[in-house]
Amino acid sequence: MKIGILTGGGDCPGLNAVIRAVVRKGIFHYDDEFLGFMEGWRGLIENQSMALDLDAVSGILPRGGTILRTSRTNPSKRPDGFDRCMATIAAHKIDALVAIGGDDTLSVAQKLHEKGVNVVGVPKTIDNDLGGTDYTFGFDTACNIVCEAIDRVHTTAEAHNRVMVVEVMGRDAGWIALYSGIAGGADVILIPERPFDVDKVAESIRQRHERGRYFSIVVVAEGAKFATGAGAPVVQDMGKDEFGHAKLGGIANILAREIENRTKFETRAVVLGHIQRGGSPTAFDRVLATRYGLGAIDMVHRGEFGCMAALRSNKIVSITLKEAISKNRVVDDEMIEIADGLFEEIGAKVASK
Amino acid sequence: MKIGILTGGGDCPGLNAVIRAVVRKGIFHYDDEFLGFMEGWRGLIENQSMALDLDAVSGILPRGGTILRTSRTNPSKRPDGFDRCMATIAAHKIDALVAIGGDDTLSVAQKLHEKGVNVVGVPKTIDNDLGGTDYTFGFDTACNIVCEAIDRVHTTAEAHNRVMVVEVMGRDAGWIALYSGIAGGADVILIPERPFDVDKVAESIRQRHERGRYFSIVVVAEGAKFATGAGAPVVQDMGKDEFGHAKLGGIANILAREIENRTKFETRAVVLGHIQRGGSPTAFDRVLATRYGLGAIDMVHRGEFGCMAALRSNKIVSITLKEAISKNRVVDDEMIEIADGLFEEIGAKVASK
Amino acid sequence: MKIGILTGGGDCPGLNAVIRAVVRKGIFHYDDEFLGFMEGWRGLIENQSMALDLDAVSGILPRGGTILRTSRTNPSKRPDGFDRCMATIAAHKIDALVAIGGDDTLSVAQKLHEKGVNVVGVPKTIDNDLGGTDYTFGFDTACNIVCEAIDRVHTTAEAHNRVMVVEVMGRDAGWIALYSGIAGGADVILIPERPFDVDKVAESIRQRHERGRYFSIVVVAEGAKFATGAGAPVVQDMGKDEFGHAKLGGIANILAREIENRTKFETRAVVLGHIQRGGSPTAFDRVLATRYGLGAIDMVHRGEFGCMAALRSNKIVSITLKEAISKNRVVDDEMIEIADGLFEEIGAKVASK
Amino acid sequence: MKIGILTGGGDCPGLNAVIRAVVRKGIFHYDDEFLGFMEGWRGLIENQSMALDLDAVSGILPRGGTILRTSRTNPSKRPDGFDRCMATIAAHKIDALVAIGGDDTLSVAQKLHEKGVNVVGVPKTIDNDLGGTDYTFGFDTACNIVCEAIDRVHTTAEAHNRVMVVEVMGRDAGWIALYSGIAGGADVILIPERPFDVDKVAESIRQRHERGRYFSIVVVAEGAKFATGAGAPVVQDMGKDEFGHAKLGGIANILAREIENRTKFETRAVVLGHIQRGGSPTAFDRVLATRYGLGAIDMVHRGEFGCMAALRSNKIVSITLKEAISKNRVVDDEMIEIADGLFEEIGAKVASK
Repeated sequence: MKIGILTGGGDCPGLNAVIRAVVRKGIFHYDDEFLGFMEGWRGLIENQSMALDLDAVSGILPRGGTILRTSRTNPSKRPDGFDRCMATIAAHKIDALVAIGGDDTLSVAQKLHEKGVNVVGVPKTIDNDLGGTDYTFGFDTACNIVCEAIDRVHTTAEAHNRVMVVEVMGRDAGWIALYSGIAGGADVILIPERPFDVDKVAESIRQRHERGRYFSIVVVAEGAKFATGAGAPVVQDMGKDEFGHAKLGGIANILAREIENRTKFETRAVVLGHIQRGGSPTAFDRVLATRYGLGAIDMVHRGEFGCMAALRSNKIVSITLKEAISKNRVVDDEMIEIADGLFEEIGAKVASK
Repeated sequence: MKIGILTGGGDCPGLNAVIRAVVRKGIFHYDDEFLGFMEGWRGLIENQSMALDLDAVSGILPRGGTILRTSRTNPSKRPDGFDRCMATIAAHKIDALVAIGGDDTLSVAQKLHEKGVNVVGVPKTIDNDLGGTDYTFGFDTACNIVCEAIDRVHTTAEAHNRVMVVEVMGRDAGWIALYSGIAGGADVILIPERPFDVDKVAESIRQRHERGRYFSIVVVAEGAKFATGAGAPVVQDMGKDEFGHAKLGGIANILAREIENRTKFETRAVVLGHIQRGGSPTAFDRVLATRYGLGAIDMVHRGEFGCMAALRSNKIVSITLKEAISKNRVVDDEMIEIADGLFEEIGAKVASK
Repeated sequence: MKIGILTGGGDCPGLNAVIRAVVRKGIFHYDDEFLGFMEGWRGLIENQSMALDLDAVSGILPRGGTILRTSRTNPSKRPDGFDRCMATIAAHKIDALVAIGGDDTLSVAQKLHEKGVNVVGVPKTIDNDLGGTDYTFGFDTACNIVCEAIDRVHTTAEAHNRVMVVEVMGRDAGWIALYSGIAGGADVILIPERPFDVDKVAESIRQRHERGRYFSIVVVAEGAKFATGAGAPVVQDMGKDEFGHAKLGGIANILAREIENRTKFETRAVVLGHIQRGGSPTAFDRVLATRYGLGAIDMVHRGEFGCMAALRSNKIVSITLKEAISKNRVVDDEMIEIADGLFEEIGAKVASK
Repeated sequence: MKIGILTGGGDCPGLNAVIRAVVRKGIFHYDDEFLGFMEGWRGLIENQSMALDLDAVSGILPRGGTILRTSRTNPSKRPDGFDRCMATIAAHKIDALVAIGGDDTLSVAQKLHEKGVNVVGVPKTIDNDLGGTDYTFGFDTACNIVCEAIDRVHTTAEAHNRVMVVEVMGRDAGWIALYSGIAGGADVILIPERPFDVDKVAESIRQRHERGRYFSIVVVAEGAKFATGAGAPVVQDMGKDEFGHAKLGGIANILAREIENRTKFETRAVVLGHIQRGGSPTAFDRVLATRYGLGAIDMVHRGEFGCMAALRSNKIVSITLKEAISKNRVVDDEMIEIADGLFEEIGAKVASK
C-alpha cells in the first residue's frame, strides 16, 4: 500500500517515534511505501511532501519535534480546503492516511473519512486530556521536565524562605500539574477542574510556615481559575495582547501577588512555558509512541478506517474517531484524592471545594 | 496507631517516596506514630530503629536509596530470628508493620503475619517481575538510565562502525531489556524468556550491515541464555569468583566475542551494572511509589493485613501476600510481538525461536 | 581556630560545596571548629547559628541551595547593624569569618575587616561578572540549564517554523547569554554590553529565512537594551509592578512582539527565570566551588584577612576584597568576536553597533 | 579556498561542534568551500568524502559522535599510505586540511605537513592529557557523566553499607578520575601518576568506617597501578583476551576483591566504559569545541600550517604540531594537593607514596 503520514497541532515529544514505528513496520512487515505530508494539513492542501523510507526515519527516535513539521492549518477554514486535500490524495494515489494529532487534527481526519478517505488516527496531546485513551505520549516527558524544574526551584525556595509559584501547561485539564506536583513534592496544586479559593491557599501556606517550613511550592496549571467570591482578585485575567500570545501577567504572576499580599512571605513566579514540550522523549514516551505507531499501521492493514489507536489498560486498541473527539478527559476524583492524601487536613490542597 | 516501617532487599529508586507517603498520610489523616526499623529485617532482629516524624521524611522524595537503609538479612536463616523480631515488635508496642521489599522480604512478612503480626506489604523490584502487580517503582527510572546510556553508546557505535553490546539488569525477566531496548532503538534485544541462537543474531547484524547500517546496538539482559546447539559457545558462563560477585566475563563480554568472531565487525561490550538502580527517581516512579505508600497506610487502617498494595489497570488495590509471592511475572508475548514489529522479518530479533 | 561561615545574596549552585570544603579541610588538616551563621548577615545580627561538623556537611556536595540559607539583609541598613554583628562575633569567640557572597556581601565583609574582624571572602555570582576572578561557581550550571532549555525549544521552533526568544539571567553582564547562546546554537544573542537595533535583528532573521531556515532562536539577557533611535519601541520597559518583582512584560515579551511585527513570522517568548539558579551543580562547578573553599581555609590559616579567594589562569590566588568589589567584569570583545565568527556578515549578531 | 576536514581516533563529544564552527566561519567570513574525508585518514587513503555545506552542518552542534565518522587507520602502516593521501589531496585540489584528533592523528598530520600539505591540527583527547593545551573538549562531558554515575552509586553504597569501586577512563593520566572524583565526593581516588598501596587504601576505608561512615566510594582510573610490595596482589593485570578488547577483570574488579579481602566490607565494582565518551556535549564542551574550530579556520587563513590550535590561559593560540605531540600532560601536583585537602591526614587518599 501507499500510505501518507502527517503530524498536526502543537509539537510533542514522541512524534518522530510514531512516524518511525509506522514506517519500519510498514516496510519490514507489509512492504508498504510512505509519503510524509509537511506541516499537517497544509501539506495536503498545498501538495508538499517528502519521501519516507528507512533512511528518512533513521536516528529520529530520540529527537523531539517532528521531521514532518506541523501547523494548525485547518482545511475547513478555507472554501476549497477539503477539495485540495482530496486532489493531493488522488494525485499521489494514497491508499491510506495516518493522521497524528489532537482534537482539531482528528476532527479533520473524521471529515476526510466521511468523504471516503481511508484514515487512521493517532492521538497526540501533551496535556493527556484526550477522551478514549488512558495515556498519550509526551505527557510523561512534560512531567519529568516540570518535576526537574520543581526540584531546582525547591533549593532556591528553601535557601531564601520563599514561596515559589510554578505555572505549568494545562488549559482545560490539570494532569500535568497534578502528576508533576505530586512528583515534585508541591505543597499546593491548583488545577482547572477545581476553582480555588486564594484565601485558603494562603492560609495553608501560613499554617505550613507555623510548622517550621519557611518555604512552599505552589504548582498551578495555566488554566486554573480563582473561585468567585471574596478572595478573588478584581482583575484575575490580564488577557492576551494585540498579537494574541504575549501572556503578560498569567495566572502565576497574579497568584504570586495575591499570596504575597495575604501572607507577607516573599513570593516568586516561574512560568515554564515552551520548554515543557520540546526535547528528547523519555523512555516511557518512546515506547508508548512506538506502540501507537505499530498499532496504527496494523489498523491500516486490518482496514480499521475512521478509527484511532488508543491505549486502554495497557493495551493498544482501536476506537472510532467519533468517540475519541467527542469528549475531553479531565482529572478524575481518584487522582485528586491521592494528592489530598499527602497534605494536612486544612483545606483540600488540590483546589478548594 | 503505632506503625513500624522497613525496607529490605536491593535498593531501588522510590523507596524514600513510599516511606514519605506512608508517614505523611499517617500523621496528617490518621494521627499515627511511626518507627523506622533499620536495614530491613536486621533492624527487627537487632532492635535498631529511628523515629519517623515529618522532619525525618522532609526532603527525601527526590532522593535515591532509603533513609532506613536495607539488607538481605533473613530471620528464617537463624534459629531465634523470628522470636527476636516478635520481641522487638512487642517491646515497641507496634500495632502494624509496613514491609517494603521483594520476594524474600514479603515471604518473611507473610510468615510474621501467620504468627499474628499485622503486616502490610509494598512490592519492590526494579526488574518489574513481581506477580500480581502491573508496574513496580524503580523500573521506569532504570529504563530511563539505560535508554540514556544507549543513546550515548549509539553515537560511538555510529562514529566507529561498531557493534555495541549493552548488558542490563534482569536475571529472570527481560522487562528492562525489552523496554529500554525499544526506547533506545536497539537492533537486537535478548531476554531470559527466550534463549537465543547466536548465529541468528550475527546473521541479522550482517544483514543490517548489507543494508548500509554499519553499526548495531545489541541489548542483552544479564540473565539471557544461549540456546544449546551448534551456535552456543563451549563455555558460556564464566561463573562467579570465589567471593561470589565479580562477574568477570558476564554475558555481554562473551556475546561480544561470539558476534565479532562470526561477523568480523569490531564489537564492544558495556556492562551498566549498579548505576541502573541508584539516584533520583523519575516523575513516574515518584508518583507510583507515593501511590503505593498511600495505599499501604489506608490498608493498615482498613485492617487488610497479610496483604500487599498492588497496581492493577492503573488503580491501587489490595491482594494477599500469598498471591503476590507465589509467581514471577515474565515478559508476555504481546510485548515481544511489539518489539518484533520494529525489526525486519529475518529472525525474531527478540530472541530466537 | 573557631571559624564562622555565612552565605549571602542570591542562592547559587555550589554554595554547599564551598561550605563542605572549608569545613573538611579545616577539621582534617587544621583541627578547626566551625559555626555556621544562618541567612547571611542576618545570622550575625540576630545571633542565629548552627554547628558545622563533619556530619553537618555530609552528603551536601551534590545539593543546590545552601544549608545555611541566605538573605539580602545588610547590617549597614540599620543603625546598630554592625554593633550587633561585632557582639555576636565576640560572644562566640570567633577567630575568623568566611563570607561567601557577591558584591553586597563582600562590601559588608570589607567593612567588618576595617573594624578588625578577620574576614576571608569567597566570590559568588551566577552571572560570572565579579571583578578580579576568572570564573565563579554556579555559572557553568546555569549555562548548562539554559543550553538544555534551548535544545528543547529548538525542536519546537523547527517543528512550527517559529522564532523563539529565550530570556536568560544577566542584568549587567551578558556572560550567560553569550556562553549558552553559543552552546545552544542561537542565531542571535543580545547582551547588556551592546544595545541592539531591533531592525537589524529582524533583518538577520529574515535573511536566515531566505536561506531556507524557517526558524530562529534569539537568546536575550534580561538586562539587554534597545538602542535608541528609529527601531526602538515606544515603551521598551514595562517596569516593575507595585510589589517590585512581577516583571510582567520583560525584555523577551517586548522583543518577541517587535520581531513578529517586523518579520510577520510567528514568534514566542520563553522566560527561564529561577530554574537557572537552582538544583545540583555540574562537575565543573563542584570542583571550582571546592577549590574556592579549600583556598579560603588556607587563607585563614595564612592570615590573609581582608582578602578574597580568586581564580586566575586556573589557579586559586588571594586578592584584596577592595580590589574585588571595585569593578564588574563585563563580556570582553574577544568573546563577542568568537560569537560573531559563527554568524553571517550581515549585522553583528551579538548586538548591533 | 578549498579545505578538507577529517576526524581521527576515538570519538569524543564536541567533534561535530568543531566541524560546524570551521565550516560556518569558513563559508560566512572567508567564502571557503569544504570537503569532509570519511573515517579519519582512511578517507584520504581510499578517497571517500562528503560535501560539507551549511545544510550538512545544520543541527549537529548538540550531537555526539562525528558526522565524518572516525577510525584508527594510519597511513604510515601501509607502504603506499602517504602516497595515496597525497593523491587524494591533489585530485580534489585541496588547499588546506584541518585534522581533528589525538596524538596518532596529529603525528600523521605533522608528516603530511613535512611533505608539503597545508595542515592545521585541532587537539582531541577525552582524557585531557595532550601536551601544549590546557583543556580539550569532551573532558568536561566525561566528568559530568562520571559525576552523575557516582551520585547514583552513592545512594546504593549508602543504602547497603557498601564499598563501591568505580572505574573510569584514563590510561596514562588521571584527569577524569581526579576531577570527577572530587566532584562526586569520592573517598579514595587512584590515578596512573601515583601507584597505590592497597593496604593503605583499605586502612583509610576502615578508619572512615570507624568514624561512622559505613560506605565508601573509590574512583579508580583504568590505568592506575598497584605499587609493588607486600600489598600488591599476585596477579594484578588479567590482561587482554585473544581479541584484544574484553578487559575481563580490569582494575576495578581486582581492587574490589582486594579491598573486600582486607576490610571484610561488602565491595562492588562498576566499570563505566563507553558511556563516558558518547552523547551530547555539555555547554562548556560545545563552547570550547566551537572556539577550537574558529581558531583553526583563522589559522588556515593566516597561513599558520604545521600548527595546532591550543587553549592557554583561556585564549586560543597557535602552537606547532611538533610541540603538541612531543609530550603528554599528566596530572600536576597542585591538583593532587587539592584532592588531598578534602581527606583526613591518614594516607594521601590520592594514591599512596
